[in-house]
Amino acid sequence: MGWMYTINDTIVALATAPGEGAIGVIRLSGSEAIAIAEKIFKGKKLSKLPSHTLHLGKIVAGETTIDEVVVSLFKGPKSYTGENVVEISCHGSPYILQQIIDLCLKQGARMAKPGEFTLRAFLKGKMDLTQAEAVADLIASQSGASHQAAMHNLRGGFSQELRSMREELIKFSALIELELDFSQEDVEFADRTQLYDLISRIREATRRLVDSFRLGNVIKNGVSVAIIGKPNAGKSTLLNALLNEERAIVSDIAGTTRDTIEEVLNINGVLFRLIDTAGIREHSSDAIERIGVQRSKEAMSNADVVVYLFDLKESLVADIIDQAEELKKTGTTYILVGNKSDALGIGNAKEKFAALDNNILFISAKNKENTQQLKEALYELAMQGKVKPEGTIVTNARHYGALQDVLRSLEDIKKGMDENLPGDLVALDIRNALHYLGDITGEVTTEDKLDYIFSKFCIGK
Amino acid sequence: MGWMYTINDTIVALATAPGEGAIGVIRLSGSEAIAIAEKIFKGKKLSKLPSHTLHLGKIVAGETTIDEVVVSLFKGPKSYTGENVVEISCHGSPYILQQIIDLCLKQGARMAKPGEFTLRAFLKGKMDLTQAEAVADLIASQSGASHQAAMHNLRGGFSQELRSMREELIKFSALIELELDFSQEDVEFADRTQLYDLISRIREATRRLVDSFRLGNVIKNGVSVAIIGKPNAGKSTLLNALLNEERAIVSDIAGTTRDTIEEVLNINGVLFRLIDTAGIREHSSDAIERIGVQRSKEAMSNADVVVYLFDLKESLVADIIDQAEELKKTGTTYILVGNKSDALGIGNAKEKFAALDNNILFISAKNKENTQQLKEALYELAMQGKVKPEGTIVTNARHYGALQDVLRSLEDIKKGMDENLPGDLVALDIRNALHYLGDITGEVTTEDKLDYIFSKFCIGK
Repeated sequence: MGWMYTINDTIVALATAPGEGAIGVIRLSGSEAIAIAEKIFKGKKLSKLPSHTLHLGKIVAGETTIDEVVVSLFKGPKSYTGENVVEISCHGSPYILQQIIDLCLKQGARMAKPGEFTLRAFLKGKMDLTQAEAVADLIASQSGASHQAAMHNLRGGFSQELRSMREELIKFSALIELELDFSQEDVEFADRTQLYDLISRIREATRRLVDSFRLGNVIKNGVSVAIIGKPNAGKSTLLNALLNEERAIVSDIAGTTRDTIEEVLNINGVLFRLIDTAGIREHSSDAIERIGVQRSKEAMSNADVVVYLFDLKESLVADIIDQAEELKKTGTTYILVGNKSDALGIGNAKEKFAALDNNILFISAKNKENTQQLKEALYELAMQGKVKPEGTIVTNARHYGALQDVLRSLEDIKKGMDENLPGDLVALDIRNALHYLGDITGEVTTEDKLDYIFSKFCIGK
Repeated sequence: MGWMYTINDTIVALATAPGEGAIGVIRLSGSEAIAIAEKIFKGKKLSKLPSHTLHLGKIVAGETTIDEVVVSLFKGPKSYTGENVVEISCHGSPYILQQIIDLCLKQGARMAKPGEFTLRAFLKGKMDLTQAEAVADLIASQSGASHQAAMHNLRGGFSQELRSMREELIKFSALIELELDFSQEDVEFADRTQLYDLISRIREATRRLVDSFRLGNVIKNGVSVAIIGKPNAGKSTLLNALLNEERAIVSDIAGTTRDTIEEVLNINGVLFRLIDTAGIREHSSDAIERIGVQRSKEAMSNADVVVYLFDLKESLVADIIDQAEELKKTGTTYILVGNKSDALGIGNAKEKFAALDNNILFISAKNKENTQQLKEALYELAMQGKVKPEGTIVTNARHYGALQDVLRSLEDIKKGMDENLPGDLVALDIRNALHYLGDITGEVTTEDKLDYIFSKFCIGK
């Protein structure tokens, strides 16, 4: 794509969400942003006005008034991109927005590519790559946890940790090289223990970041929960009880739910995507329902957590024991939930399923009894083995990959020291580690990599 | 609802389209707008800053940073509403937007009702009612014609015409009253001809506005075109040819199109809503297809224009003649379109259907032959009998109704003069006419009427 060749032109895009609204905002960035806006704006002369000011006027195409607008002026470098930026705030009609963008294009602007405004901010040194990536994460954040993780990164929290690791590594490297220079003279500038301490401190920090990705992934992508069970176990009723709204069509006719339905539930700031599945019933005569059953099995094998829901009154104890065994065999994280405690009575239910020990959560989806406990159990299951670290939580798969590379290089360094490898080989591993760290922040990068990262942004950002 | 009681508080709403975008804008308006924003904004002290300026800072909830934002300050009366207005431009994440709105609510703002910002602009005298209504029309405009009509009104074009009519009426009223005062003395201040001229000038202007609504309605709401015909006449292919894209599923199996599909086509700046209907086939065995046929008939009876499409090769001439007769009987505006001229050959087709004279448009939807002519024919049919006036085109049904009332009052005045009614009765009709004119601009209005008008706006406007 060749970003580098096109950084000098002026780009334009719709910055607000598409669709009708009270207002819509079009963003122009580049050396010609103000000149282009001036050509289509009837009002004060924009180029004569100070930065960070707002101006009422009209956007015109020849004699035709397209809209009455407010123009925001940001002169570089004090702008989002670091370049001159003009934002045109007009009436939120898709027709008008398109007309104004067309006018900007006619006057020499170019349609911005996805994420290109943020790419420019990165290239102009307004932010590093982890901050740029946090912008996209922030916009996509749907829960308190994902929002806070992205905000931490946007504000440079992650960059700072990486910088301090980098500084530690450089300090380590300096010591190694000093020893190298004087290796003939048998001088010890830093005792071995100190060097070991240093490298293990960096390794520990890196490992902490690598480990945080297990949680980070959950925070960013949420937890998928498949609710499975026989027809009429009460899956749709449970979904509704959890969501506190009538989402799925509930009916007493077995096989009502044909398609999988995905709904989002926020438990303690983490998103749970609940997948209501078609009742698992093997020999359905209805073709469309058979497809539903197939999808249900797929949803189950892709889920992070499986809720196996059964009717306490109608189910045979032996069947549930079998089912639990089967789930255990597949290695799935699951929870057994006995429903309709209202019909059987909670005491009778506990007695009936005593053989399964305390492994069942007894609920009444209809009466919303114990559904709060189910939420808490889901949260516990999702968080199992995931530590919540102080500071940065890595939520980005690219960062996770690079951090694993950093960790591998650090382990190579340690191994090299253990095996008394020549200092220059150890120095190579240090350079590797520094390279991978720089890869995360964008200090070392390629056009292809930038293209890939920013292509996942929305247009206008 | 009681607007008048609530004009003194501060309102807040999302001003941009809902959904994810690069940025989203939240608007606060009211005497406390700046004070409320200041409580949640970490940056410069907003109340100390001049109007029409932009400020970078953070929105915070206690210790938690919600977002990095740019705040726009507009101090009343130089703002959209005439009150103090603060716009918070943040990252376009629905989660963040909701958080910021919640913070504003906690600090004492109230959720804005639909159109309430514009209502305030009206109540503060920033615009009259026709301009306020033009704001909603402008946002909803989807074509050049509807956009220009709304822009004309927003800029006060309509208000000005009404004002000049009002002035003429007042001039007329003054003359009548002078004559009344001196009626005993048999003095003629204005000759009868002059009075007649004056009233007919106003009537003509009013009638012109009333008449413009036929076009205005088409401009605002578009023209609905039902494409009907037997299965396999090529309706979906024609729709695709007109739209230049593959919208409907085209297949050779009769009865493929089950539901009506609506697509929008812009011809000479006017919107045509094309409705592809299920093939009309009486005795379908498939229940879902039968519903489709039913909908097809409904679409046809609701359409402004019906395109009757038939296969030139397969159709019997007598059938088409019958069909044309039937359409004529219903009073529908229709056009006969013979398709698949490629299969039969255009010469053969014309010969075969010579009995129908020149009433058929011969096309090949497959080869996009004559489809441009079809577009032009549709435009001509839709514009039949609709004059394009200079100046205002009335597009609003409320204005249309009030203008009809004005016209009726003017005719009463004329009749009164013709019948030499007492001057005070004529004066009453004049007051009626002035009342209806004031009703349009909002000089005379009721809370209920305002509630009704603004409830049709989107929230945030």
